[in-house]
Amino acid sequence: MNVKEYMVEVGRYAREASRKIAAADTGKKNQALMAISDAIDASRDVILSANCQDVENAERNGLEAALLDRLTLTDKTIDGMNEGLHQVASLPDPVGAITDLNYQPSGIQVGKMRVPLGVIGIIYESRPNVTVEAASLCLKSGNATILRGGSEAIGSNQAIAACIKQGLNVAGLPAESVQVIETTDREAVGELITMPQYVDVIVPRGGKGLIERISRDAKVAVIKHLDGICHVYIDRWADREKAIKVAFNSKTQRYGTCNTMETLLVHQSIAQEVLPELADRYQTAGVELRGCEHTKNILQQVASASDQDWTTEYLAPILSIKLVESMDDAIRHINNYGSHHTDSIITENYTKARRFLTEVDSSSVMVNTSTRFADGFEYGLGAEIGISTDKIHARGPVGLEGLTSQKFVVLGDGHIRN
Amino acid sequence: MNVKEYMVEVGRYAREASRKIAAADTGKKNQALMAISDAIDASRDVILSANCQDVENAERNGLEAALLDRLTLTDKTIDGMNEGLHQVASLPDPVGAITDLNYQPSGIQVGKMRVPLGVIGIIYESRPNVTVEAASLCLKSGNATILRGGSEAIGSNQAIAACIKQGLNVAGLPAESVQVIETTDREAVGELITMPQYVDVIVPRGGKGLIERISRDAKVAVIKHLDGICHVYIDRWADREKAIKVAFNSKTQRYGTCNTMETLLVHQSIAQEVLPELADRYQTAGVELRGCEHTKNILQQVASASDQDWTTEYLAPILSIKLVESMDDAIRHINNYGSHHTDSIITENYTKARRFLTEVDSSSVMVNTSTRFADGFEYGLGAEIGISTDKIHARGPVGLEGLTSQKFVVLGDGHIRN
Repeated sequence: MNVKEYMVEVGRYAREASRKIAAADTGKKNQALMAISDAIDASRDVILSANCQDVENAERNGLEAALLDRLTLTDKTIDGMNEGLHQVASLPDPVGAITDLNYQPSGIQVGKMRVPLGVIGIIYESRPNVTVEAASLCLKSGNATILRGGSEAIGSNQAIAACIKQGLNVAGLPAESVQVIETTDREAVGELITMPQYVDVIVPRGGKGLIERISRDAKVAVIKHLDGICHVYIDRWADREKAIKVAFNSKTQRYGTCNTMETLLVHQSIAQEVLPELADRYQTAGVELRGCEHTKNILQQVASASDQDWTTEYLAPILSIKLVESMDDAIRHINNYGSHHTDSIITENYTKARRFLTEVDSSSVMVNTSTRFADGFEYGLGAEIGISTDKIHARGPVGLEGLTSQKFVVLGDGHIRN
Repeated sequence: MNVKEYMVEVGRYAREASRKIAAADTGKKNQALMAISDAIDASRDVILSANCQDVENAERNGLEAALLDRLTLTDKTIDGMNEGLHQVASLPDPVGAITDLNYQPSGIQVGKMRVPLGVIGIIYESRPNVTVEAASLCLKSGNATILRGGSEAIGSNQAIAACIKQGLNVAGLPAESVQVIETTDREAVGELITMPQYVDVIVPRGGKGLIERISRDAKVAVIKHLDGICHVYIDRWADREKAIKVAFNSKTQRYGTCNTMETLLVHQSIAQEVLPELADRYQTAGVELRGCEHTKNILQQVASASDQDWTTEYLAPILSIKLVESMDDAIRHINNYGSHHTDSIITENYTKARRFLTEVDSSSVMVNTSTRFADGFEYGLGAEIGISTDKIHARGPVGLEGLTSQKFVVLGDGHIRN
């Protein structure tokens, strides 16, 4: 069997399983999640030794340290997987919820029912814990899943897949509800993203290059997350203490995350009041500052920001700073140079706050809040499969609801149209 | 200026206008809709004479009768346009609605705000009334629109575009909120669907060929409507009168619409009771019947249905009929051969009804209701831009809400993450 035939078989099984998992009871899905957790717990040694082998191979092949780190499983990461499974089991089931069921003038009742998307293909890098995380969210939301992890994690993923199958069996759900692709052949990805008859949605998780490539070539819908070029705008009417606290936290609480601030915008009439102290704090924390010409009038020692800085996701202790003449300037900058991810205004002015929330075209818009809060857990979604920078279907953190859509239900009593 | 340069200019204007129209007051948008209606009313002669010229040219070029009919405007169609404009003005504004604003454990408040998609490109055939309809729905939902109508309607569309511009001016909204493409060059469509920097969503309206081509080549999201292969399933526990009434209406109320039934599924144990009378009524109405082998045991004179019949959208007085052994068979047939559009069960059985609603994977699922009700107006959406057969973003009739999405709003008071 070649890769194409194999993928068609995987797709066909997934489509078949998706019908059953879509109609499965909440209780059965939760039972499966708990049983998967039990199986993982019981198979710790098997999973860790498979992972050990993966890590050895990857080291031999010269995988870089950061990626090796993500590949490596420990007892603690396995505890984390199990915690995640229990947490997803405890979330409310979105499937089947009927809302807005109202009578229409014709006498029919029309409402909306929340339903799974069908088959979701997840493409991710060599992080075995994502296998469990993605599988559990898709399972709870009634979707069948085809998982394609990075080739370096193939052994770990197979060991985890065996536990998932076991858990599904315990609950009497089809084992093909979650399939981990067994080949590391790159052609498998090409097939996965071009089988609209078997796959409804692709969720790529990983670097920008991977996501751009998949979006370009996919023949099915893609829920994607590109850059996080997030801004904090310190308005003329900002409270000085809140401004410094939030701007510092948005940059420094973690550097490598997509909701980290990359550009700080400051209204020119408050710049003198906040920038020197902020610059001190950033520099103490080791953050390299790059400023526009007006910034440099206040902070003489900082480097010059070029136009490229405004469109760069540093994912590093670097921050660009720009002074603006008005909130309109700030909003224009954010909408033009940003990535429509997460942007926050610091202000005490009611009208400015209200306008910022409306006019900034980003998946999360905030007032007096650190951008680092843009996260499924912090938003009360319970979990997230990613943060969408798309404009249709789902924007921002995507939880269980983002893995579903709504169909119309119509109840009549022999109603016909005249 | 070549076509590409022209389209980039159109795109740039649209993006700019989209920011303003997204933040426009409900009152101003309604004022524009009314003013467009006034302008159309005042320009009746201009529009009708431009249309007359279009029709003459199309006749000379041998356009077929059905398409000529759709191209032709009359005083009555213009009245219809104005009625539509008033109706859209009277609909509630979806933009800016904030829902589910709740406090999270960290102390931040998180909610969702409904927002326009941005710039919507509409590609449609030579039906000048669609120009007004699409423009008004996009305008009310706060989106900028780029309209590309069929080349035969270019004169009519330009005349209507002038009225739209006038109306936008009266309300002080940017004239580029609605742009009608001024060239009939086909290359313009190719450009329109591949400018993700300027266009957020494409809505193609027209034949299956057009929609498939656009979906294949587009580099932006497409809200699309492919086939309507709709089913009525007469369950073993159906009420005989309701079954006959609904099955007859679903096929014969109109033949050319996407929500017309194309295949009738009948439980074998009720077939003898309902099929002969139904066949009589269909044949009196001039509907050609094609049946499976078991159907032919009951209705001897009907033609044989081939496998191809189960996947054909006739859009004509033809009906295929299949007997099934169980509701599971019926659901399997619908999910495999149907187009996930609209399907209805006729039953008095509570459990069957409940299962059918859950397990049929279509954008509209119905109980004891004619499939012909699948329509934005009948569903209380006020209007529709089309019926989506996609699974993500919007399924079924797409009204104002389907032209928007939701972003997260976060309100804090200097909150930072620890």
